[in-house]
Amino acid sequence: MRYVDIVTALAVLQYLVFGFKVGSARERYGVRAPAVTGHEIFERRFRVQQNTLEQLIAFLPGLYLFGRYWHPVWGAAIGVVYLVGRELYSAAYVRDPAKRGPGFGLSFLAVAVLVVGGLCGAVLTFF
Amino acid sequence: MRYVDIVTALAVLQYLVFGFKVGSARERYGVRAPAVTGHEIFERRFRVQQNTLEQLIAFLPGLYLFGRYWHPVWGAAIGVVYLVGRELYSAAYVRDPAKRGPGFGLSFLAVAVLVVGGLCGAVLTFF
Amino acid sequence: MRYVDIVTALAVLQYLVFGFKVGSARERYGVRAPAVTGHEIFERRFRVQQNTLEQLIAFLPGLYLFGRYWHPVWGAAIGVVYLVGRELYSAAYVRDPAKRGPGFGLSFLAVAVLVVGGLCGAVLTFF
Repeated sequence: MRYVDIVTALAVLQYLVFGFKVGSARERYGVRAPAVTGHEIFERRFRVQQNTLEQLIAFLPGLYLFGRYWHPVWGAAIGVVYLVGRELYSAAYVRDPAKRGPGFGLSFLAVAVLVVGGLCGAVLTFF
Repeated sequence: MRYVDIVTALAVLQYLVFGFKVGSARERYGVRAPAVTGHEIFERRFRVQQNTLEQLIAFLPGLYLFGRYWHPVWGAAIGVVYLVGRELYSAAYVRDPAKRGPGFGLSFLAVAVLVVGGLCGAVLTFF
Repeated sequence: MRYVDIVTALAVLQYLVFGFKVGSARERYGVRAPAVTGHEIFERRFRVQQNTLEQLIAFLPGLYLFGRYWHPVWGAAIGVVYLVGRELYSAAYVRDPAKRGPGFGLSFLAVAVLVVGGLCGAVLTFF
Protein backbone atom coordinates (compact mmCIF):
# COMPACT_ATOMS: atom_id res chain seq x y z
CA MET A 1 0.00 0.00 0.00
CA ARG A 2 2.98 2.37 -0.03
CA TYR A 3 1.97 3.71 -3.46
CA VAL A 4 -1.42 4.54 -2.01
CA ASP A 5 0.26 6.09 1.04
CA ILE A 6 2.54 8.28 -1.09
CA VAL A 7 -0.39 9.58 -3.15
CA THR A 8 -2.31 10.16 0.10
CA ALA A 9 0.54 12.31 1.44
CA LEU A 10 0.90 14.18 -1.87
CA ALA A 11 -2.83 14.97 -1.97
CA VAL A 12 -2.70 16.27 1.60
CA LEU A 13 0.38 18.37 0.81
CA GLN A 14 -1.27 19.81 -2.31
CA TYR A 15 -4.24 20.77 -0.16
CA LEU A 16 -1.99 22.37 2.47
CA VAL A 17 -0.30 24.43 -0.28
CA PHE A 18 -3.73 25.65 -1.43
CA GLY A 19 -4.40 26.60 2.20
CA PHE A 20 -1.10 28.44 2.41
CA LYS A 21 -2.10 30.48 -0.64
CA VAL A 22 -5.36 31.42 1.10
CA GLY A 23 -3.37 32.73 4.06
CA SER A 24 -1.07 34.70 1.73
CA ALA A 25 -4.08 36.20 -0.08
CA ARG A 26 -5.63 37.10 3.29
CA GLU A 27 -2.53 39.12 4.13
CA ARG A 28 -1.99 40.65 0.71
CA TYR A 29 -5.57 41.82 0.19
CA GLY A 30 -6.22 42.79 3.80
CA VAL A 31 -9.10 40.42 4.50
CA ARG A 32 -9.20 40.36 8.29
CA ALA A 33 -10.25 37.20 10.17
CA PRO A 34 -12.95 36.00 10.73
CA ALA A 35 -14.16 37.46 7.39
CA VAL A 36 -13.94 35.14 4.35
CA THR A 37 -15.19 37.66 1.83
CA GLY A 38 -14.12 41.15 0.76
CA HIS A 39 -11.69 40.62 -2.13
CA GLU A 40 -12.36 38.67 -5.30
CA ILE A 41 -8.95 36.96 -5.53
CA PHE A 42 -9.01 36.01 -1.85
CA GLU A 43 -12.47 34.50 -2.35
CA ARG A 44 -11.26 32.48 -5.34
CA ARG A 45 -8.26 31.13 -3.40
CA PHE A 46 -10.55 30.35 -0.50
CA ARG A 47 -13.04 28.51 -2.70
CA VAL A 48 -10.18 26.48 -4.30
CA GLN A 49 -9.07 25.34 -0.85
CA GLN A 50 -12.63 24.69 0.35
CA ASN A 51 -13.53 22.74 -2.76
CA THR A 52 -10.34 20.70 -2.48
CA LEU A 53 -11.23 19.94 1.15
CA GLU A 54 -14.67 18.83 -0.04
CA GLN A 55 -13.07 16.50 -2.61
CA LEU A 56 -10.29 15.25 -0.33
CA ILE A 57 -12.72 13.83 2.24
CA ALA A 58 -14.13 11.64 -0.55
CA PHE A 59 -10.83 11.01 -2.35
CA LEU A 60 -8.86 9.56 0.59
CA PRO A 61 -11.36 6.83 1.62
CA GLY A 62 -11.96 6.05 -2.07
CA LEU A 63 -8.22 5.71 -2.70
CA TYR A 64 -7.84 3.39 0.26
CA LEU A 65 -10.85 1.21 -0.65
CA PHE A 66 -9.85 0.97 -4.31
CA GLY A 67 -6.30 0.09 -3.32
CA ARG A 68 -7.55 -2.55 -0.94
CA TYR A 69 -10.15 -4.28 -3.13
CA TRP A 70 -8.57 -3.83 -6.56
CA HIS A 71 -4.89 -2.93 -6.65
CA PRO A 72 -2.79 -0.31 -4.84
CA VAL A 73 -0.85 0.69 -7.97
CA TRP A 74 -4.01 1.20 -10.01
CA GLY A 75 -5.51 3.19 -7.16
CA ALA A 76 -2.38 5.33 -6.93
CA ALA A 77 -2.41 5.90 -10.71
CA ILE A 78 -6.02 7.15 -10.57
CA GLY A 79 -4.93 9.25 -7.61
CA VAL A 80 -2.33 10.96 -9.82
CA VAL A 81 -5.17 11.90 -12.21
CA TYR A 82 -6.90 13.50 -9.24
CA LEU A 83 -3.74 15.47 -8.35
CA VAL A 84 -3.39 16.77 -11.92
CA GLY A 85 -7.08 17.69 -12.07
CA ARG A 86 -6.78 19.68 -8.85
CA GLU A 87 -3.78 21.62 -10.16
CA LEU A 88 -5.68 22.51 -13.34
CA TYR A 89 -8.72 23.46 -11.24
CA SER A 90 -6.73 25.74 -8.97
CA ALA A 91 -4.88 27.50 -11.81
CA ALA A 92 -8.07 27.99 -13.85
CA TYR A 93 -10.26 29.13 -10.92
CA VAL A 94 -7.87 31.88 -9.85
CA ARG A 95 -7.67 33.22 -13.42
CA ASP A 96 -11.38 32.91 -14.16
CA PRO A 97 -13.96 30.96 -12.07
CA ALA A 98 -16.01 30.27 -15.19
CA LYS A 99 -13.11 28.14 -16.54
CA ARG A 100 -12.94 25.81 -13.52
CA GLY A 101 -14.96 23.04 -15.19
CA PRO A 102 -12.31 20.79 -16.85
CA GLY A 103 -10.02 20.59 -13.80
CA PHE A 104 -12.97 19.96 -11.52
CA GLY A 105 -14.34 17.32 -13.85
CA LEU A 106 -11.04 15.45 -14.11
CA SER A 107 -10.48 15.26 -10.35
CA PHE A 108 -14.15 14.47 -9.70
CA LEU A 109 -14.04 11.65 -12.24
CA ALA A 110 -11.04 10.16 -10.42
CA VAL A 111 -12.85 10.44 -7.07
CA ALA A 112 -15.99 8.81 -8.49
CA VAL A 113 -14.04 5.89 -9.99
CA LEU A 114 -12.21 5.31 -6.69
CA VAL A 115 -15.33 5.46 -4.48
CA VAL A 116 -17.69 3.51 -6.75
CA GLY A 117 -14.90 1.07 -7.64
CA GLY A 118 -14.07 0.59 -3.95
CA LEU A 119 -17.74 -0.01 -3.11
CA CYS A 120 -18.10 -2.56 -5.93
CA GLY A 121 -14.89 -4.27 -4.88
CA ALA A 122 -16.06 -4.59 -1.28
CA VAL A 123 -19.51 -5.88 -2.31
CA LEU A 124 -17.99 -8.40 -4.72
CA THR A 125 -16.16 -10.09 -1.84
CA PHE A 126 -19.54 -11.57 -0.83
CA PHE A 127 -19.80 -13.50 -4.10
CA MET B 1 -14.00 -5.01 7.91
CA ARG B 2 -15.80 -5.18 4.55
CA TYR B 3 -19.08 -4.14 6.23
CA VAL B 4 -17.29 -1.07 7.57
CA ASP B 5 -15.80 -0.45 4.14
CA ILE B 6 -19.18 -0.67 2.41
CA VAL B 7 -20.75 1.81 4.85
CA THR B 8 -17.69 4.06 4.38
CA ALA B 9 -18.24 4.08 0.62
CA LEU B 10 -21.99 4.66 1.01
CA ALA B 11 -21.43 7.62 3.35
CA VAL B 12 -18.97 9.15 0.88
CA LEU B 13 -21.39 8.61 -2.01
CA GLN B 14 -24.25 10.17 -0.04
CA TYR B 15 -22.03 13.17 0.59
CA LEU B 16 -21.08 13.40 -3.10
CA VAL B 17 -24.79 13.36 -4.02
CA PHE B 18 -25.38 16.26 -1.62
CA GLY B 19 -22.52 18.05 -3.35
CA PHE B 20 -24.02 17.33 -6.75
CA LYS B 21 -27.27 18.96 -5.59
CA VAL B 22 -25.30 22.07 -4.57
CA GLY B 23 -23.87 22.29 -8.07
CA SER B 24 -27.35 21.88 -9.59
CA ALA B 25 -28.76 24.60 -7.31
CA ARG B 26 -25.86 26.87 -8.27
CA GLU B 27 -26.85 26.53 -11.93
CA ARG B 28 -30.60 26.72 -11.43
CA TYR B 29 -30.60 29.79 -9.20
CA GLY B 30 -27.75 31.59 -10.96
CA VAL B 31 -25.33 31.78 -8.01
CA ARG B 32 -22.03 32.50 -9.74
CA ALA B 33 -18.76 31.16 -8.29
CA PRO B 34 -17.04 32.11 -6.01
CA ALA B 35 -20.21 33.35 -4.26
CA VAL B 36 -21.85 30.90 -1.83
CA THR B 37 -24.81 33.12 -0.96
CA GLY B 38 -27.51 34.86 -2.98
CA HIS B 39 -30.42 32.39 -3.08
CA GLU B 40 -32.11 30.78 -0.10
CA ILE B 41 -32.47 27.28 -1.58
CA PHE B 42 -28.89 27.28 -2.82
CA GLU B 43 -27.73 28.28 0.66
CA ARG B 44 -29.73 25.44 2.25
CA ARG B 45 -28.28 22.88 -0.17
CA PHE B 46 -24.82 24.28 0.48
CA ARG B 47 -25.26 24.10 4.27
CA VAL B 48 -26.50 20.48 3.97
CA GLN B 49 -23.33 19.55 2.10
CA GLN B 50 -21.07 21.55 4.42
CA ASN B 51 -22.64 20.11 7.55
CA THR B 52 -22.37 16.60 6.11
CA LEU B 53 -18.68 17.25 5.40
CA GLU B 54 -18.29 18.42 9.01
CA GLN B 55 -19.91 15.19 10.26
CA LEU B 56 -18.15 12.90 7.78
CA ILE B 57 -14.68 13.85 9.01
CA ALA B 58 -15.74 12.61 12.48
CA PHE B 59 -17.88 9.71 11.27
CA LEU B 60 -15.26 7.91 9.17
CA PRO B 61 -12.52 7.65 11.86
CA GLY B 62 -15.18 6.78 14.45
CA LEU B 63 -16.57 4.01 12.24
CA TYR B 64 -13.12 2.59 11.69
CA LEU B 65 -12.16 2.71 15.39
CA PHE B 66 -15.45 1.24 16.55
CA GLY B 67 -15.18 -1.53 13.97
CA ARG B 68 -11.64 -2.26 15.04
CA TYR B 69 -12.06 -2.28 18.83
CA TRP B 70 -15.63 -3.58 19.13
CA HIS B 71 -17.07 -5.28 16.06
CA PRO B 72 -17.22 -4.34 12.37
CA VAL B 73 -20.87 -5.41 11.96
CA TRP B 74 -22.00 -3.35 14.97
CA GLY B 75 -20.02 -0.40 13.68
CA ALA B 76 -21.59 -0.78 10.24
CA ALA B 77 -25.08 -1.01 11.79
CA ILE B 78 -24.54 2.26 13.69
CA GLY B 79 -23.20 3.66 10.43
CA VAL B 80 -26.53 2.88 8.75
CA VAL B 81 -28.26 4.95 11.48
CA TYR B 82 -25.94 7.80 10.48
CA LEU B 83 -26.88 7.40 6.80
CA VAL B 84 -30.60 7.50 7.61
CA GLY B 85 -30.15 10.53 9.88
CA ARG B 86 -28.33 12.40 7.12
CA GLU B 87 -31.11 11.69 4.61
CA LEU B 88 -33.72 12.99 7.07
CA TYR B 89 -31.53 16.03 7.77
CA SER B 90 -31.10 16.87 4.09
CA ALA B 91 -34.79 16.49 3.24
CA ALA B 92 -35.91 18.53 6.27
CA TYR B 93 -33.32 21.30 5.87
CA VAL B 94 -34.23 22.03 2.26
CA ARG B 95 -37.94 22.25 3.15
CA ASP B 96 -37.45 24.26 6.35
CA PRO B 97 -34.12 24.83 8.16
CA ALA B 98 -35.97 25.06 11.50
CA LYS B 99 -36.95 21.37 11.12
CA ARG B 100 -33.41 20.07 10.71
CA GLY B 101 -33.08 18.99 14.37
CA PRO B 102 -34.21 15.32 14.38
CA GLY B 103 -32.12 14.25 11.38
CA PHE B 104 -29.10 16.10 12.71
CA GLY B 105 -29.59 14.57 16.17
CA LEU B 106 -29.88 11.02 14.83
CA SER B 107 -26.72 11.21 12.73
CA PHE B 108 -24.83 13.09 15.44
CA LEU B 109 -25.79 10.44 18.01
CA ALA B 110 -24.40 7.74 15.71
CA VAL B 111 -21.16 9.72 15.27
CA ALA B 112 -20.83 10.26 19.04
CA VAL B 113 -21.36 6.56 19.80
CA LEU B 114 -18.76 5.55 17.21
CA VAL B 115 -16.09 8.04 18.31
CA VAL B 116 -16.56 7.70 22.08
CA GLY B 117 -17.01 3.93 21.73
CA GLY B 118 -13.86 3.70 19.62
CA LEU B 119 -11.89 5.76 22.15
CA CYS B 120 -13.08 3.59 25.05
CA GLY B 121 -12.32 0.44 23.10
CA ALA B 122 -8.76 1.59 22.37
CA VAL B 123 -8.15 2.66 26.00
CA LEU B 124 -9.54 -0.64 27.32
CA THR B 125 -6.81 -2.54 25.47
CA PHE B 126 -4.40 -1.30 28.14
CA PHE B 127 -6.28 -3.17 30.90
CA MET C 1 -1.26 1.58 16.70
CA ARG C 2 -3.56 2.05 19.69
CA TYR C 3 -1.69 5.21 20.70
CA VAL C 4 -2.36 6.60 17.23
CA ASP C 5 -5.99 5.50 17.49
CA ILE C 6 -6.47 7.21 20.86
CA VAL C 7 -5.03 10.48 19.58
CA THR C 8 -7.23 10.12 16.47
CA ALA C 9 -10.34 9.81 18.66
CA LEU C 10 -9.24 12.72 20.89
CA ALA C 11 -8.67 14.99 17.88
CA VAL C 12 -12.12 14.11 16.52
CA LEU C 13 -13.73 14.73 19.92
CA GLN C 14 -11.96 18.08 20.25
CA TYR C 15 -13.33 19.01 16.85
CA LEU C 16 -16.84 17.91 17.82
CA VAL C 17 -16.62 20.08 20.96
CA PHE C 18 -15.66 23.07 18.77
CA GLY C 19 -18.70 22.26 16.64
CA PHE C 20 -20.91 22.07 19.72
CA LYS C 21 -19.77 25.56 20.68
CA VAL C 22 -20.76 26.82 17.22
CA GLY C 23 -24.25 25.44 17.76
CA SER C 24 -24.45 27.08 21.19
CA ALA C 25 -23.30 30.42 19.76
CA ARG C 26 -25.89 30.08 16.97
CA GLU C 27 -28.63 29.81 19.60
CA ARG C 28 -27.28 32.42 21.98
CA TYR C 29 -26.70 35.12 19.38
CA GLY C 30 -29.74 34.33 17.26
CA VAL C 31 -27.94 33.47 14.01
CA ARG C 32 -30.63 31.58 12.10
CA ALA C 33 -29.68 28.75 9.71
CA PRO C 34 -28.59 28.77 6.91
CA ALA C 35 -26.78 32.04 7.73
CA VAL C 36 -23.17 31.72 8.98
CA THR C 37 -22.63 35.42 9.58
CA GLY C 38 -24.38 38.07 11.65
CA HIS C 39 -22.63 38.08 15.02
CA GLU C 40 -18.90 38.48 15.62
CA ILE C 41 -18.55 35.84 18.36
CA PHE C 42 -20.57 33.31 16.36
CA GLU C 43 -18.33 33.96 13.36
CA ARG C 44 -15.21 33.40 15.46
CA ARG C 45 -16.54 30.12 16.86
CA PHE C 46 -17.52 29.10 13.35
CA ARG C 47 -14.09 29.91 11.95
CA VAL C 48 -12.41 27.95 14.78
CA GLN C 49 -14.46 24.89 13.86
CA GLN C 50 -13.95 25.37 10.13
CA ASN C 51 -10.20 25.87 10.49
CA THR C 52 -9.97 22.79 12.73
CA LEU C 53 -11.86 20.81 10.09
CA GLU C 54 -9.37 22.08 7.50
CA GLN C 55 -6.47 20.93 9.68
CA LEU C 56 -8.04 17.63 10.75
CA ILE C 57 -8.34 16.35 7.17
CA ALA C 58 -4.54 16.73 6.90
CA PHE C 59 -3.73 15.70 10.47
CA LEU C 60 -5.45 12.31 10.50
CA PRO C 61 -3.78 10.85 7.37
CA GLY C 62 -0.45 12.37 8.49
CA LEU C 63 -0.76 10.79 11.93
CA TYR C 64 -1.53 7.42 10.43
CA LEU C 65 1.32 7.56 7.89
CA PHE C 66 3.86 8.75 10.45
CA GLY C 67 2.75 6.06 12.88
CA ARG C 68 3.05 3.46 10.17
CA TYR C 69 6.43 4.40 8.67
CA TRP C 70 8.20 5.75 11.76
CA HIS C 71 6.71 4.87 15.12
CA PRO C 72 3.15 4.98 16.55
CA VAL C 73 4.26 6.43 19.90
CA TRP C 74 6.25 9.23 18.24
CA GLY C 75 3.34 9.95 15.95
CA ALA C 76 0.94 10.07 18.92
CA ALA C 77 3.31 12.40 20.80
CA ILE C 78 3.39 14.83 17.86
CA GLY C 79 -0.38 14.44 17.76
CA VAL C 80 -0.59 15.69 21.36
CA VAL C 81 1.29 18.83 20.24
CA TYR C 82 -1.41 19.29 17.61
CA LEU C 83 -4.17 18.94 20.26
CA VAL C 84 -2.51 21.53 22.51
CA GLY C 85 -2.00 23.91 19.59
CA ARG C 86 -5.67 23.66 18.64
CA GLU C 87 -6.79 24.45 22.21
CA LEU C 88 -4.56 27.53 22.25
CA TYR C 89 -5.85 28.54 18.83
CA SER C 90 -9.49 28.23 19.85
CA ALA C 91 -9.06 30.14 23.14
CA ALA C 92 -7.06 32.94 21.47
CA TYR C 93 -9.29 33.27 18.39
CA VAL C 94 -12.49 33.76 20.42
CA ARG C 95 -10.84 36.45 22.54
CA ASP C 96 -9.08 38.20 19.66
CA PRO C 97 -8.67 36.83 16.11
CA ALA C 98 -5.42 38.79 15.72
CA LYS C 99 -3.85 36.59 18.46
CA ARG C 100 -4.60 33.28 16.74
CA GLY C 101 -1.07 32.93 15.30
CA PRO C 102 0.85 30.91 17.93
CA GLY C 103 -1.83 28.24 18.42
CA PHE C 104 -2.28 27.93 14.68
CA GLY C 105 1.47 27.72 14.15
CA LEU C 106 1.96 25.00 16.75
CA SER C 107 -0.78 22.75 15.40
CA PHE C 108 0.23 23.44 11.79
CA LEU C 109 3.85 22.53 12.58
CA ALA C 110 2.68 19.21 14.01
CA VAL C 111 0.58 18.54 10.91
CA ALA C 112 3.49 19.41 8.60
CA VAL C 113 5.91 17.11 10.46
CA LEU C 114 3.42 14.24 10.35
CA VAL C 115 2.56 14.61 6.65
CA VAL C 116 6.08 15.32 5.35
CA GLY C 117 7.53 12.71 7.72
CA GLY C 118 4.97 10.16 6.58
CA LEU C 119 5.73 10.89 2.93
CA CYS C 120 9.48 10.55 3.49
CA GLY C 121 8.96 7.36 5.44
CA ALA C 122 6.89 5.82 2.65
CA VAL C 123 9.38 6.89 -0.05
CA LEU C 124 12.31 5.53 1.97
CA THR C 125 10.83 2.02 1.84
CA PHE C 126 11.94 1.89 -1.81
CA PHE C 127 15.62 2.19 -0.79
